[in-house]
Amino acid sequence: MTKPFPFSAIVGQDDMKQAMVLTAVDPSIGGVLVFGDRGTGKSTAVRALAALLPPIRQVAGCPVNSARKADCPDWAEVEDTRLVNRPTPVVDLPLGVTEDRVTGALDIERALTRGEKAFQPGLLARANRGYLYIDEVNLLEDHIVDLLLDVAQSGENVVEREGMSIRHPARFVLVGSGNPEEGELRPQLLDRFGLSVDVTSPRDVDTRVEVVRRRDAYERDGKAFLRDWEAADADLRKAILAARKALVKIATPDAILRDCAALCIALGADGLRGELTLLKTARAQAAYEGATDVSRAHLRRVAPMALQHRLRRDPMDEAGSATRVMRVVTETLGPIQAAAE
Amino acid sequence: MTKPFPFSAIVGQDDMKQAMVLTAVDPSIGGVLVFGDRGTGKSTAVRALAALLPPIRQVAGCPVNSARKADCPDWAEVEDTRLVNRPTPVVDLPLGVTEDRVTGALDIERALTRGEKAFQPGLLARANRGYLYIDEVNLLEDHIVDLLLDVAQSGENVVEREGMSIRHPARFVLVGSGNPEEGELRPQLLDRFGLSVDVTSPRDVDTRVEVVRRRDAYERDGKAFLRDWEAADADLRKAILAARKALVKIATPDAILRDCAALCIALGADGLRGELTLLKTARAQAAYEGATDVSRAHLRRVAPMALQHRLRRDPMDEAGSATRVMRVVTETLGPIQAAAE
Amino acid sequence: MTKPFPFSAIVGQDDMKQAMVLTAVDPSIGGVLVFGDRGTGKSTAVRALAALLPPIRQVAGCPVNSARKADCPDWAEVEDTRLVNRPTPVVDLPLGVTEDRVTGALDIERALTRGEKAFQPGLLARANRGYLYIDEVNLLEDHIVDLLLDVAQSGENVVEREGMSIRHPARFVLVGSGNPEEGELRPQLLDRFGLSVDVTSPRDVDTRVEVVRRRDAYERDGKAFLRDWEAADADLRKAILAARKALVKIATPDAILRDCAALCIALGADGLRGELTLLKTARAQAAYEGATDVSRAHLRRVAPMALQHRLRRDPMDEAGSATRVMRVVTETLGPIQAAAE
Amino acid sequence: MTKPFPFSAIVGQDDMKQAMVLTAVDPSIGGVLVFGDRGTGKSTAVRALAALLPPIRQVAGCPVNSARKADCPDWAEVEDTRLVNRPTPVVDLPLGVTEDRVTGALDIERALTRGEKAFQPGLLARANRGYLYIDEVNLLEDHIVDLLLDVAQSGENVVEREGMSIRHPARFVLVGSGNPEEGELRPQLLDRFGLSVDVTSPRDVDTRVEVVRRRDAYERDGKAFLRDWEAADADLRKAILAARKALVKIATPDAILRDCAALCIALGADGLRGELTLLKTARAQAAYEGATDVSRAHLRRVAPMALQHRLRRDPMDEAGSATRVMRVVTETLGPIQAAAE
Amino acid sequence: MTKPFPFSAIVGQDDMKQAMVLTAVDPSIGGVLVFGDRGTGKSTAVRALAALLPPIRQVAGCPVNSARKADCPDWAEVEDTRLVNRPTPVVDLPLGVTEDRVTGALDIERALTRGEKAFQPGLLARANRGYLYIDEVNLLEDHIVDLLLDVAQSGENVVEREGMSIRHPARFVLVGSGNPEEGELRPQLLDRFGLSVDVTSPRDVDTRVEVVRRRDAYERDGKAFLRDWEAADADLRKAILAARKALVKIATPDAILRDCAALCIALGADGLRGELTLLKTARAQAAYEGATDVSRAHLRRVAPMALQHRLRRDPMDEAGSATRVMRVVTETLGPIQAAAE
Amino acid sequence: MTKPFPFSAIVGQDDMKQAMVLTAVDPSIGGVLVFGDRGTGKSTAVRALAALLPPIRQVAGCPVNSARKADCPDWAEVEDTRLVNRPTPVVDLPLGVTEDRVTGALDIERALTRGEKAFQPGLLARANRGYLYIDEVNLLEDHIVDLLLDVAQSGENVVEREGMSIRHPARFVLVGSGNPEEGELRPQLLDRFGLSVDVTSPRDVDTRVEVVRRRDAYERDGKAFLRDWEAADADLRKAILAARKALVKIATPDAILRDCAALCIALGADGLRGELTLLKTARAQAAYEGATDVSRAHLRRVAPMALQHRLRRDPMDEAGSATRVMRVVTETLGPIQAAAE
Repeated sequence: MTKPFPFSAIVGQDDMKQAMVLTAVDPSIGGVLVFGDRGTGKSTAVRALAALLPPIRQVAGCPVNSARKADCPDWAEVEDTRLVNRPTPVVDLPLGVTEDRVTGALDIERALTRGEKAFQPGLLARANRGYLYIDEVNLLEDHIVDLLLDVAQSGENVVEREGMSIRHPARFVLVGSGNPEEGELRPQLLDRFGLSVDVTSPRDVDTRVEVVRRRDAYERDGKAFLRDWEAADADLRKAILAARKALVKIATPDAILRDCAALCIALGADGLRGELTLLKTARAQAAYEGATDVSRAHLRRVAPMALQHRLRRDPMDEAGSATRVMRVVTETLGPIQAAAE
Repeated sequence: MTKPFPFSAIVGQDDMKQAMVLTAVDPSIGGVLVFGDRGTGKSTAVRALAALLPPIRQVAGCPVNSARKADCPDWAEVEDTRLVNRPTPVVDLPLGVTEDRVTGALDIERALTRGEKAFQPGLLARANRGYLYIDEVNLLEDHIVDLLLDVAQSGENVVEREGMSIRHPARFVLVGSGNPEEGELRPQLLDRFGLSVDVTSPRDVDTRVEVVRRRDAYERDGKAFLRDWEAADADLRKAILAARKALVKIATPDAILRDCAALCIALGADGLRGELTLLKTARAQAAYEGATDVSRAHLRRVAPMALQHRLRRDPMDEAGSATRVMRVVTETLGPIQAAAE
Repeated sequence: MTKPFPFSAIVGQDDMKQAMVLTAVDPSIGGVLVFGDRGTGKSTAVRALAALLPPIRQVAGCPVNSARKADCPDWAEVEDTRLVNRPTPVVDLPLGVTEDRVTGALDIERALTRGEKAFQPGLLARANRGYLYIDEVNLLEDHIVDLLLDVAQSGENVVEREGMSIRHPARFVLVGSGNPEEGELRPQLLDRFGLSVDVTSPRDVDTRVEVVRRRDAYERDGKAFLRDWEAADADLRKAILAARKALVKIATPDAILRDCAALCIALGADGLRGELTLLKTARAQAAYEGATDVSRAHLRRVAPMALQHRLRRDPMDEAGSATRVMRVVTETLGPIQAAAE
Repeated sequence: MTKPFPFSAIVGQDDMKQAMVLTAVDPSIGGVLVFGDRGTGKSTAVRALAALLPPIRQVAGCPVNSARKADCPDWAEVEDTRLVNRPTPVVDLPLGVTEDRVTGALDIERALTRGEKAFQPGLLARANRGYLYIDEVNLLEDHIVDLLLDVAQSGENVVEREGMSIRHPARFVLVGSGNPEEGELRPQLLDRFGLSVDVTSPRDVDTRVEVVRRRDAYERDGKAFLRDWEAADADLRKAILAARKALVKIATPDAILRDCAALCIALGADGLRGELTLLKTARAQAAYEGATDVSRAHLRRVAPMALQHRLRRDPMDEAGSATRVMRVVTETLGPIQAAAE
Repeated sequence: MTKPFPFSAIVGQDDMKQAMVLTAVDPSIGGVLVFGDRGTGKSTAVRALAALLPPIRQVAGCPVNSARKADCPDWAEVEDTRLVNRPTPVVDLPLGVTEDRVTGALDIERALTRGEKAFQPGLLARANRGYLYIDEVNLLEDHIVDLLLDVAQSGENVVEREGMSIRHPARFVLVGSGNPEEGELRPQLLDRFGLSVDVTSPRDVDTRVEVVRRRDAYERDGKAFLRDWEAADADLRKAILAARKALVKIATPDAILRDCAALCIALGADGLRGELTLLKTARAQAAYEGATDVSRAHLRRVAPMALQHRLRRDPMDEAGSATRVMRVVTETLGPIQAAAE
Repeated sequence: MTKPFPFSAIVGQDDMKQAMVLTAVDPSIGGVLVFGDRGTGKSTAVRALAALLPPIRQVAGCPVNSARKADCPDWAEVEDTRLVNRPTPVVDLPLGVTEDRVTGALDIERALTRGEKAFQPGLLARANRGYLYIDEVNLLEDHIVDLLLDVAQSGENVVEREGMSIRHPARFVLVGSGNPEEGELRPQLLDRFGLSVDVTSPRDVDTRVEVVRRRDAYERDGKAFLRDWEAADADLRKAILAARKALVKIATPDAILRDCAALCIALGADGLRGELTLLKTARAQAAYEGATDVSRAHLRRVAPMALQHRLRRDPMDEAGSATRVMRVVTETLGPIQAAAE
């Protein structure tokens, strides 16, 4: 239908945009969870991401978008070997989706007409090497959320049902939007998202006017509006591609590894997933900034988004999670010394 | 069956009638939610709207009422290219409706007789470019309400079930009636309706007598009654069509944009959806009044219906939501100065 | 099987009998809800009504009992054009009835044997132009009650399921029996019944002996008993038919309209449904009494049955609802002055 | 399999045995509910009843056991016209019975093999003119109990499901056993049973020894035991048949009718069902005793079983229900004067 | 798979072993319920029982193991008439068993391939004349437990489902294990088990070492271990067969019947089932001991297992149920006088 | 997909690793339950185990991996007799697995195409002679957990459903991970696991840095990392195979048996399962250490993992379960005297 609102035209919301950019640089960072009240543009941002992402190269006709024929699953009976470019898949999980459409299931048509037990891939297959978006995680049934997180982490979809035993790669970045007013998410679930950011409505008139003005322009004459922002989106896309290439060469000083550990211990972040995510996100930030080494400045930039959703609630401390992360960052790494870092 | 009660013959209830007229002028304003006790004529009003609306022009046989053949979905296999006039669709969601009839589903008949996996469109397809009416939103199952709001906002129906992956346009105005006595609606849900109005039983004898007199006349001799009100309805229809045309040319002064923002900040309306809706509704009001610019008078007229359902409940403030909106409007925009605005 | 107990042979219970007679005179009054403890003869009375009602004239073979061929639904493929007399349909909703039997559903037999998607009408079709009886409304599942009330009010059955989109007229009087001891009914639901009456066991020996004597006679020698009461039932039937004819000519003085409004305002009856029902019931009463105008005496007679179930519960007022209605009637219309009214 | 324990060999439990005998004399009295703790022989007694009952005469092959070919339902396509004797049907409702086996349902076999929509009758058809026994009413699902009581009262089974609309006679005496420890039954439900009796374990050694001795004898050598009691059962059967014939000629003095009413008013038994049942049970007792008129002695004998389950619970009165009935009987009818009555 | 642990090799747990032996002597005693914490060897004991039981003689191919061709059900179409020996059936109810596998159901295969409505027997058929074992009664669904107890008591399986009406003998001893920590069983349910015993972990080191030593030996070299205990099991088997033969000749003095009644009255055991079970169990004990008459010593031996689960809980009495039974036995029958009894 | 993280490269977590090694030495020890907060590497460890385990030798094509053709089930119709080496099966229970995939079920494809009722084995068949892994036991449905534990203990899968009666060997070690924050497991369930261990995040910076460094290396260049740790894993594998061979010859002094009993009595561990598990685990430890006899040192080493999950919660004792076990070990066996034991 209409093209989504351009990513670059989103007013403010820098953390959210940066989190999305960094997972595009290094998808192994894991998913992004966007928290915010209704009407703060969460859905708009995620849909905008789709238009921004660089294309992937894949075997023509491969149902899991594999880059090499050898990685296309047996059951797909892919015959073609040509490689084609296609947009990074951004799969939207519609409300009311059934488990069989998510994981794939028996192909009823072939079963009925040809008496064959064939596998019909689901949304997880389609999302391989791309993004899977869940609007309002709170509204999705628990068993489907568990299943998605499980697959997101293992990178593989295992289907054991209706007498079939199927597996195929399913590596994707899970992006979810959640509304803290509609009930909390389980800590177990939060921890499986790589990054989290808060979005709020701007509180000053000028910004709000600008938001509404752009939105109104987009709705009244979408084509013109999209043309105006095309170049900005393209620049961002190039920057992501450059950062991807740079990523493998970024050095990680031992002091930075120790900083990561010290930060997580000081914050009492359970488990080691936070530490690894912090490291990877800082490295992606370094790559995006064109640096050659991960530095404390990179850690500072990404620590809140990598760690805030992994803190235990502290009833004594009324500060928000992001504030608590920044306070501990300052205590642990010292105040910002732009030149020194 | 019998034709519905004429829209113009509804006694009083000006806000409700105006809200419906404005969404007819600009359907992108979003749905209307009508609150009221039992017996206040909510259903009557919505059914009356059906007879009032101007016809649409569409491709003959297109299951989603598209205006251009290119917009008819592939699965529909539309061959005809003629354009025909037809009444604006007003689709009524019957109680006990199943999800597959709402979204569309596998066409069982074709599957059984021809072994083909064809899509049979549902009520969302039929409602495209029209209205979808839910009587007593409270009685509808949650998962169907979520689904309707989701589609209403994205303008697209995405079906992922029974091995099908289908999408088609589904732009409609959602009209719902609700009874505050039968439990509150979730804020998340309220926010997705563009406008809301309250209807109450009139408290003076004269008005009540007039209501009952007209209703009794309609029930005793419907044809004569409809004849009496035909002209009034036709005038209203013409006014709506004129406003639609005027809409694109209405100017929106920056001061008005700032007024919208200031109002929403002062009211503490979360999110930016309220602001955009307020702007669009005021613009539709301006068009309907034949003005060339949106003015403060237009904002005043529509602010309660655009904003009252987006306020947080304030236990300290016993005034109703509409009263609170009007008070803030006066504080923010100053008292009415009819000439100046 | 055996013929029901004769309506005329019911001892006492005048309000209940009159409410039933009036809905037979003007079915648009809406349903009757009979409240009473167990064993007060509620079911007996409703089943007795069946034998009393005058026949209707309909197209032979029309599944919805239409009076004109043009009103038989398309899907029925009625070929016959003869008109025939048949007893007014009184459809009994058996316990355990499934939704598909109520609304109608896909005709499985034709689907299986001929591969056609045909509609098989349900009880709502059969009840058109007649009565639908629910014994113990409390035992029926909520979703079926909602559905019945919805159809009863709109006069049309809309079926959207199993890929079918069907509508047909379904105008009937809903008669329900309820037991206040088995839990209250929702106000929303009460309001949709036109009239309500209470039945109680008589408290004096003579009446009770007479009740048991008649019942025992009916059970020991049904044929003889029915013969004894045939004439009384026939007289009542004639009176109903006469009242039906007279109905359209009854005048409704403006003062009566104002009385209706004043009464409802004084009683705090929400909504305007009560007012319209009061007016219609009084008019039916006038027609039944052979009057030419609706008078205050008619209002007095029917006010309790038309209004008592629409009052809000008043914890301060221990009087029953009917008593409260009568008190307000006296305050509003003044004490009875038989001659003056 | 083995023949049930002989009815006559049951030690004590006179009320229970008499209640069962009286419903055999006049089945229109309605069902019997037997209350008692576990192990008091409730099931034994009901199964014993089966062997006692006199045979019925019916059309050979009629699925509803009708006495006249004209009463066999159309759908049964009965061709035979011979009349045959068969034991009074005593149908046992097994646990886990499905609703379709109770009411009857579509004959799947014929549907699949011959493509015909035929009705396969259920247990209600088989129970016509006999007994239907529910062990532990408490364990049966509510919707099935409601259905059984509904049919028991109307004497007709109405099936509206799977596109079928079937009715057939289903007159039977419902016999249920209940355990007051496993939760109370709804008053609505109690009232629909004609009679109720309590059974308790005997408290004296001699009786208990006799019970165990007979039971042990029956289990160790069933055939010999049955032979010993054959004559006693046969005598009882003859007495029942004689009473049935006498029943129609029993006179019911007006004073007795007034006594019935006075008793029920004094007991505050809601509704009139108690009164009618009391009358019929007393008349059956009179017939069984060979009397020509119903007398106060007959009322005294049967009042507890006909009325005790219809009293409202009285928290101030610790006496059991049967005791309360007898106290009121004495107050109302005066103390027993064997000669005078 | 591997043979079960030998019954004779179970260390201690005399009551449990004796209860099982006595039901093998007289299966009409009814089921055995074994209570105990986890890890006390309940399951081991029951599985051990299987290897101990003597074989039965049955018609070859009879699905219900009948001893005479005439007792094989019609639907089985047994043609063979030879009698064969086979191990006493011990049917294990697996978790997740469905009701249709328990009771038997329509044979889907024959229905699909041959269009016939044939009955496929379930576990109840297979258990006829043997044992049915439920591990952890608490984990079984209520409706299946009710069904099993019902069949266990009537000795007949009645199936009314899927349009079939089937009955066949199903006489078996129900053996269940329960864990008092996982919630109590309903009294109604307890009463239907003939005997109950408690098993506990031994508390002294020597016994525990012996238990673990034997179990370890069995797991490390099962064959050798089984060989060691073969003779002990065979002796026990012979003793059971001898007792079975003796059973019919055991005399039951009247004084013993009075003792049974006196004991049950003194214990306040509801119902008469306890009394009959006590009598039968004492008689089986007498037969097992080679006595010619039932004596008080036999009553003393078996009273706790026959009665303890039928007592009402007494909050004032902290003694366990078995202790309370023994105390009453001493009070009622006097202290043990080995010679005199 | 990618090979799992090498077992030897796991930093610390010695108890968890040793528990897994010991069940590889003697699978009859039973399952391992790993407790720990999120992000402590539970899943990583279990998946690492898969790569470590030595291969098994089995009949080619046998669906239950049997070592001898005679042990392949009848229904498998295995024709091949060759023996082949294959990796020890490690079966992963995916979320959303259905009961029929776990136990096996009717092969629908063969049923539909060939009309045969064939068994299609499930995950339990595939896991025979290997490991079955459940991530987050808490998320699995209760009825499936019960079923798995039942089969794990009996070593046999019994399927009674859809008219099939199937059994096959299913001996596997159940490995589960659980999160104590997501609710406790039933004691009944805990007791069925052989061993349990706690894993926690390391609290010192150096260890944490090492964990993250290795994990980061594995994710950035998996192949190189795996090569580095290949030898370490191979050594461990050899040690396990050696211990397996040694196991049958390990002597168990009587004093050790008495120590086991004394420990369990002192700890109040219910049941005897703890004792037997302690014995077997100590014996496996002895074999792994190359000892010829089980000694007190071995008991000390394994007592916490064999017993800690079998203690009753003691609200007075705040020490963790493992600490309580060690305290009792010291009290019972005396302080460690390395030389003496």
